[in-house]
Amino acid sequence: MTDKTRAALPFLLVVACLISTMPCLVRAQSALEGSLQVPAKSVPVPSTVSPQLAKIIGMPLRKGWDVLPKSGEEWVPIVQATAAATIKNIPGMRERLHVKVESTIIDGVRAFIVTPGTIPAQNRNRVLLHMHGGCYVLNPGEAALPEAIFMAGFGGFKVISVDYRMPPEAYFPGAIEDGMTVYRSILKTTDPNNIAVFGSSAGGALTLEMMLKAKADGLPMPGAIAPGTPMSDVTKVGDTFVTNAMLDNVLVSPDGFCDAGTVVYANGHDLKDPLLSPVYGDMKGFPPTILTSGTRDLLLSNTVRVHRKLREAFVEAQLQVFEAQSHAQYSRDDTSPEAKAAFEEIAFFFDRHLGK
Amino acid sequence: MTDKTRAALPFLLVVACLISTMPCLVRAQSALEGSLQVPAKSVPVPSTVSPQLAKIIGMPLRKGWDVLPKSGEEWVPIVQATAAATIKNIPGMRERLHVKVESTIIDGVRAFIVTPGTIPAQNRNRVLLHMHGGCYVLNPGEAALPEAIFMAGFGGFKVISVDYRMPPEAYFPGAIEDGMTVYRSILKTTDPNNIAVFGSSAGGALTLEMMLKAKADGLPMPGAIAPGTPMSDVTKVGDTFVTNAMLDNVLVSPDGFCDAGTVVYANGHDLKDPLLSPVYGDMKGFPPTILTSGTRDLLLSNTVRVHRKLREAFVEAQLQVFEAQSHAQYSRDDTSPEAKAAFEEIAFFFDRHLGK
Repeated sequence: MTDKTRAALPFLLVVACLISTMPCLVRAQSALEGSLQVPAKSVPVPSTVSPQLAKIIGMPLRKGWDVLPKSGEEWVPIVQATAAATIKNIPGMRERLHVKVESTIIDGVRAFIVTPGTIPAQNRNRVLLHMHGGCYVLNPGEAALPEAIFMAGFGGFKVISVDYRMPPEAYFPGAIEDGMTVYRSILKTTDPNNIAVFGSSAGGALTLEMMLKAKADGLPMPGAIAPGTPMSDVTKVGDTFVTNAMLDNVLVSPDGFCDAGTVVYANGHDLKDPLLSPVYGDMKGFPPTILTSGTRDLLLSNTVRVHRKLREAFVEAQLQVFEAQSHAQYSRDDTSPEAKAAFEEIAFFFDRHLGK
Repeated sequence: MTDKTRAALPFLLVVACLISTMPCLVRAQSALEGSLQVPAKSVPVPSTVSPQLAKIIGMPLRKGWDVLPKSGEEWVPIVQATAAATIKNIPGMRERLHVKVESTIIDGVRAFIVTPGTIPAQNRNRVLLHMHGGCYVLNPGEAALPEAIFMAGFGGFKVISVDYRMPPEAYFPGAIEDGMTVYRSILKTTDPNNIAVFGSSAGGALTLEMMLKAKADGLPMPGAIAPGTPMSDVTKVGDTFVTNAMLDNVLVSPDGFCDAGTVVYANGHDLKDPLLSPVYGDMKGFPPTILTSGTRDLLLSNTVRVHRKLREAFVEAQLQVFEAQSHAQYSRDDTSPEAKAAFEEIAFFFDRHLGK
């Protein structure tokens, strides 16, 4: 490329975009001072991941990523279809990881008790509380379970997975309320140091939001938490919302289905409220935290910003980032070595920080 | 975008690329199964970084990133020009961070002794060995110093920075040999548990390579290491070599100047040798390690792959990833809060793991 061609790059890019009718500009900021014009790329599956992950990474962009239901009612058919697809895989997962699932109601809140085949001695008095992901609208009922089953199976922990209310049944802050009800219930019988809270995506955000709520309510902190790729900033601020757009094959875009789900859940509430965007909350006094993300994750910035914020508050915080993974793909296939690695790392962190 | 347009996306992309004469395909793998066609993007500077970092992140792609000298001799004028530019900033850095620099020769190897204004009591018997970066060809003499000055200033440590031989003076494994000579010298007077080794980019790779060499030579491991965004795989394998190409404004491309420098240094030696690509080395028994990278870093995959590899070898290893930073931008401006955060985090890690 000559210097002359390079100088003309921004102009040529705009021309190319116009001609091709593609969504070239993820945000309409093409001519901003300091904006970098990154050319189109063909991104292959790298050789640095397991065959199981290669299959997941090589999938096309999520079907329906740009379908944007505008109400709880409009979400229902999509929620049902995706939940049915997930639930089909639950029996196999349970069997491979030797995990038992019982449905229950805890102080009025629906939940599942997820128990491993054997609980190691050091985990007998420990309980994990799981908040599932799904943009605050997806994964009701058993569709909530994959991560809870992974954690029980790989970590040997008893897990209580909260099947919190979602639109159209309830809106903000219903999910947090249900999580807190179950947390209060566990506190009645369990030393807080023996409790950990975890979950990915909306579940990662809910984990952080529950810590803010517990502080506000004067409740003790649990012994550790593991927010996976948390939706910690739903105001679309963060660099990887742009850099990993159209690359993350799960979330795809900051203007996609997940944003639509969050807006429906928020129900008009300010998206910058720390109970919706916990990166803006005060994290002083948070328990030891392990965060998980991937290099293609649309929420990589959301994750590393929380990591830095925790460290600035002098909270013990660790970060693990998986090669080439889009949003939460570490919890996609229980037979992948990457899933085992991610959950064993979280289990190791919990074991180090929880009481016995 | 209609379904029809989406189906035509790969074709339209190719058309757009042809028309615009841009380097659209970072690698010639456009039609591979599982390859994702990521459209061109305009990427603004995010609001989530300090004003100092915003300025650095907003800079255009490094001038001369695609100038590829083919011999040690061809590198000389570029090395001199870039070194002169860096050295201009050294007096200001030294003054702001209250650091003293003395030039010395240690068992025949050129080095600098970098000393903070005051050394805290717990650091009196501790010594850090610094290996500078620069693709194995750049940053001779005082141009090696910025990171050593940051570490001495922010961490309160005595640092010995190795001004190792580079092409055309010496080729692989000259840099490692010089580092090992200084390490052996420090070992004569200092408990290995009180020594840490650190450096970024080629310096991060050299840190890891020295651990492999120390193991092979039967030398004791130091108490801790801090490889920053290490050139741990110079065979161009790793997802962010593609995903962050033309986005990382420092390294820019896997086929740019840094690759050219490494090839000259390697001098025909197999690039997959763990002494050039340490991610392929056996990391069992490595000391506690803290790794640093950024979300736009071309070597983010190189960094997280080392992190996972260390954890698989049961090595205590921590990762910090900075929002929106390209390659090693945490060590660019000592007045940025991000530089202070990065080096204080490393200092905290060293303090936790080193003997006194």
